[in-house]
Amino acid sequence: MEEIVHKAIQDEYPDDFAWCYGCGRLNEEGHHFRTGWHGEQTLTIFSPEQKHMALPGFVYGGIIASLIDCHGTGSASLALHRKNGHEVGDGAESPRFVTASLKVEFVKPTPHGVALKAIGTVTEIHPKKFKVETEVFANDVLCARGEVVAVVMPSTFLKNE
Amino acid sequence: MEEIVHKAIQDEYPDDFAWCYGCGRLNEEGHHFRTGWHGEQTLTIFSPEQKHMALPGFVYGGIIASLIDCHGTGSASLALHRKNGHEVGDGAESPRFVTASLKVEFVKPTPHGVALKAIGTVTEIHPKKFKVETEVFANDVLCARGEVVAVVMPSTFLKNE
Repeated sequence: MEEIVHKAIQDEYPDDFAWCYGCGRLNEEGHHFRTGWHGEQTLTIFSPEQKHMALPGFVYGGIIASLIDCHGTGSASLALHRKNGHEVGDGAESPRFVTASLKVEFVKPTPHGVALKAIGTVTEIHPKKFKVETEVFANDVLCARGEVVAVVMPSTFLKNE
Repeated sequence: MEEIVHKAIQDEYPDDFAWCYGCGRLNEEGHHFRTGWHGEQTLTIFSPEQKHMALPGFVYGGIIASLIDCHGTGSASLALHRKNGHEVGDGAESPRFVTASLKVEFVKPTPHGVALKAIGTVTEIHPKKFKVETEVFANDVLCARGEVVAVVMPSTFLKNE
């Protein structure tokens, strides 16, 4: 697959918010989902590891749900960042979202061994709440549909251990 | 937490269906979710690993979605197995389900470092389709709600690589 996400919003999450198992660049053992603009839509590309199977030959649904989840929060962040007058790479810290709800419809068994492409459409439903509708493709075949409602992360999340 | 799932349906999935990254006993690198009866409800207990964080102190939502997913298919399998006249441990192979759809509502940030308890209520909506409503608790506090629609795995899933 020749498509690459060159500038990802997760590359610019503040360090304190860059530990997510799904998309945190500082979580060495995580999936490192990276989400960027793709025209007016958003794009995350991910190649599941061998272990991420439902059974041999097919990708585990929980990984697809994870991809849709972080693609959703990342897409919301891209949209709000742009609304705030910023683009990835301009040096401004990007906003960080959390997931309020996640829905996944598994349309087809997802084949293992190919890169998955999540393509999202972002809608603002409130200044601090965005909806992201996502389609996940394997070999350009639609395998799953998802919807994330993402809200700006409350400040109480940080250093609240 | 003193509660333990003694007899889990995943312990009796046929070998060919025991590779799931979420709940397959043969997937050495997986989560090994195990689901059993808990009165008339179903129970899965899981302790996230350190790396499974959203940010320090909180569990990653994709892991909670994964827990709800496999808890859902496992609960459906428990219910159909019982309907077929079997109980876990009687030597009969258990039925295997796949997830048609998954919904997760994140009610509260889920604290890291404690065992999570998923408790499910199973409803048959068709002889081959079950709905499982799940609540996920940390320290007996409700952190997430989920719904899985699970269908009996089609035979085309096996050895279809």
